[in-house]
Amino acid sequence: MSTELRSSYKKLLAKNKDLIVLGSAQAILHWDMETMMPPRGVGLRSEQLALLSSIHHEMSTAPAIGKLLREILKHPAYDTLSEVEKRNVQLIKKNYDEQTRLPTKLVAEIAKQQAITVNIWKKAKATQNFNLFKPELEKLVDLNKQAAAILMEAKQTETPYDALIDIYEPKMDAESIAKIFSDLQKGLEKLLQKIETSIQPNTRILSQKVPVEKQRDIAKLLVKILNYDISSPNAGGRIDETEHPFSTGYYDDVRITTHYHTDKWTSSIFSVLHETGHALYEQGLPQEWKYQPVGAPCSLGFHESQSRLYENIIGRSKEFWINIIPKIKGVKAELDEFIRAINVVAPSKIRIEADEVTYNLHVIIRFQIEKDLFGDKLTIAELPEVWNQKYKQALGVNIENDSEGVMQDTHWASGLYGYFPTYALGNIYSGQIINKIQQENPTWSAEVAIGNLEHIRTWLTSNIYNHGNLYDPADLLKKATDEKPNVEPYLRYLEEKYQKLYAF
Amino acid sequence: MSTELRSSYKKLLAKNKDLIVLGSAQAILHWDMETMMPPRGVGLRSEQLALLSSIHHEMSTAPAIGKLLREILKHPAYDTLSEVEKRNVQLIKKNYDEQTRLPTKLVAEIAKQQAITVNIWKKAKATQNFNLFKPELEKLVDLNKQAAAILMEAKQTETPYDALIDIYEPKMDAESIAKIFSDLQKGLEKLLQKIETSIQPNTRILSQKVPVEKQRDIAKLLVKILNYDISSPNAGGRIDETEHPFSTGYYDDVRITTHYHTDKWTSSIFSVLHETGHALYEQGLPQEWKYQPVGAPCSLGFHESQSRLYENIIGRSKEFWINIIPKIKGVKAELDEFIRAINVVAPSKIRIEADEVTYNLHVIIRFQIEKDLFGDKLTIAELPEVWNQKYKQALGVNIENDSEGVMQDTHWASGLYGYFPTYALGNIYSGQIINKIQQENPTWSAEVAIGNLEHIRTWLTSNIYNHGNLYDPADLLKKATDEKPNVEPYLRYLEEKYQKLYAF
Repeated sequence: MSTELRSSYKKLLAKNKDLIVLGSAQAILHWDMETMMPPRGVGLRSEQLALLSSIHHEMSTAPAIGKLLREILKHPAYDTLSEVEKRNVQLIKKNYDEQTRLPTKLVAEIAKQQAITVNIWKKAKATQNFNLFKPELEKLVDLNKQAAAILMEAKQTETPYDALIDIYEPKMDAESIAKIFSDLQKGLEKLLQKIETSIQPNTRILSQKVPVEKQRDIAKLLVKILNYDISSPNAGGRIDETEHPFSTGYYDDVRITTHYHTDKWTSSIFSVLHETGHALYEQGLPQEWKYQPVGAPCSLGFHESQSRLYENIIGRSKEFWINIIPKIKGVKAELDEFIRAINVVAPSKIRIEADEVTYNLHVIIRFQIEKDLFGDKLTIAELPEVWNQKYKQALGVNIENDSEGVMQDTHWASGLYGYFPTYALGNIYSGQIINKIQQENPTWSAEVAIGNLEHIRTWLTSNIYNHGNLYDPADLLKKATDEKPNVEPYLRYLEEKYQKLYAF
Repeated sequence: MSTELRSSYKKLLAKNKDLIVLGSAQAILHWDMETMMPPRGVGLRSEQLALLSSIHHEMSTAPAIGKLLREILKHPAYDTLSEVEKRNVQLIKKNYDEQTRLPTKLVAEIAKQQAITVNIWKKAKATQNFNLFKPELEKLVDLNKQAAAILMEAKQTETPYDALIDIYEPKMDAESIAKIFSDLQKGLEKLLQKIETSIQPNTRILSQKVPVEKQRDIAKLLVKILNYDISSPNAGGRIDETEHPFSTGYYDDVRITTHYHTDKWTSSIFSVLHETGHALYEQGLPQEWKYQPVGAPCSLGFHESQSRLYENIIGRSKEFWINIIPKIKGVKAELDEFIRAINVVAPSKIRIEADEVTYNLHVIIRFQIEKDLFGDKLTIAELPEVWNQKYKQALGVNIENDSEGVMQDTHWASGLYGYFPTYALGNIYSGQIINKIQQENPTWSAEVAIGNLEHIRTWLTSNIYNHGNLYDPADLLKKATDEKPNVEPYLRYLEEKYQKLYAF
């Protein structure tokens, strides 16, 4: 390869490495804010995060990056770059184009309006007052429509909403999602009908009081079985406690959080399994790609496929618990009753408390609303009514106030549009992944039953983790499962599982 | 005041605020590295810290700062700036001049050589091999001599070593310190002789095993009495655990650490009192000066005066423990025996384990050696011999290997020269401070005996905290105590205290 090209490539990657390293430092400051920071520190922390954001933005739009990109892309020897090197260049280009096209003023306005809107959302939610929220949400959505219109040009998508979706799930678009979600909804509605007309499981096992200390021990046991190392001298992970569980980190320093509720003891179990799924993905990325654009997860949808695989497909299976129940002392949990209880299906109002089956319906509703909102077919003022209608229709529940309705999630107040669909896409991908694992290794669940989850991680390493961000999600899915995104395997998995549990 | 001048001043302070905020973010990343980071994260963390350091250096030497400084300093209305505003400008100028005079290449070389030297020091200390350490320390000292020569010009000090001292204790110099330390040493040697010829206290009380959980409770009790808030919803502090205790933070987010040794239960008590002294100083700085150069502690010596005041003068007094001993359950500690034991004086080899009296002799030895080293009167090769002679002479101990001798501290390997003297200066200042408190409020210790330490904090707030970095240390000392730095009050305090304890 040309030494000139090689030199430009190296310089470009060094500049991008700084962005990655800075981003990982910002993540630690965010984590500390949620877990460790003394309460009085919030003002100082906001200053720190705002400063680092502005430094990050300045570095990521530096003209030097544009110059290096042009040198590389126009270089006659460009085609001698390897597949990985080309992908690195393309990923940097994509980010640079998007960042530089958005006017700095608009980026700053969005950041400011986001902070205002989140703040108002908290107050409005606490007082069940959508009218308080409405004007600020309108401003934020308007600003994001402006950004989406600019991004649409940069990304050459069909619609502004597609440009937003592409941020989280590259190359995916609303039309494809609408088709997939339509299949999903039909399948789920059929399944739900069978479940609702069957005998419901007894769930009293879930409401026994389990002390926090005991729950911490269970969490440690679970992460050990999943091979998420939080205790060896070479550990690359942590578990801490926050109101809302999350995971964060980069390669060798990955951290998950959970919340221990004394009277909902299985809540922490599934949040730990979920976040560990995310953590293993981050830790499993190829070490030789560290600090490179390809050394990153593929998409939010793929990230969610990993968390849902461990939380639901494995974590709510009988096989998984055959091995674990005997190791949990001091909690009353008879295996069959426990499995039925942790898999109870019941339509409800709050997404984050929803079961495995109805969860997707919550996501589909949000997607439909976002699509119409960014397609100018719906105004902010109409949101509550549309929301409540859809909940009645799809889930059969009556939303009694907007705090349990349209204001329940922070996403829209935080400026996250096009983000919700990735939750259900993750479930769909997880169904396709387990289907492929099953084909290659029909005894996988028997191995899980004897406490061996390492073969699952090995498969995910070879077929997903190892590819980092080398492919767009549809391509990675094709490589890993030989399929396009489709709901058939996921629906089949649900059907078979709940048929057994509910005996319909 | 001229609006033009006002505008330049505001811009200058905004730029400097960014440096302060960035520095506070770096401090959190350092704290996290010592307390929370999973072990495998060390490589990533080094990258983060190196990047932020280089951003900090770039921002602090930005030509825009120089331009604003020139505009302000040459402005005809400069004299209309208030005392605080002028001090802000002068402090920014001092930092800018020093940072820009040092060639970027030299700064980078020093940073790199520091990392190498610390690493080699660890290995050399572990294997008692000074020859391994020697060549790298030589390089580091040479580089720092170059920096000191440049700083000497910028700061207009008499000697290169004075320029290094000025970093930590502004306007102080080696000649003044030598004079003060000479008085100190004479006084301490006399006192030590009296102590050594008296009956020694029984210290078995110190070696009883106290569980870590119990020690944590004691630490919480102590910080509560000192009004260092770690638990209220408005807390601005934390206590965590690290191998070596330290304190860090800024204004509303200040954090201390300690180490709980089961078989040395009072060790954590005095490190908590010491670090809390530092923490209260940081938290007590005037809120209206936050993010300004004046919103900072005066010097390292003053910082140490605060930690030593709480650790030794208050924390090892009978009055302090009269109130606390009854509140500590499950530990055998008879008041008089306890007070004698925690004040035992015995010359030893290791500075950080030294008692209140001999500690200063450890510091004086390091100062004398540094002075000769940077005065080119001593080579690195001669260090061990000189060290061992001085320890024999001043403390009467035989250093048997360099790991318990010249290699015991990390400071020199870390490139900290001119830093050590501030430890003893802090002790001296603390003596002058308590003398002044005593003059103003002769019953202060009686109040401590009923658990009231708030009047101490009130005095420190009015006379020290409130002045932030408005004055150089000698000026602040004059303002607070009406005195120049002098050892008389400190020696008198020691004499009176140990005369009672040892009954000589």
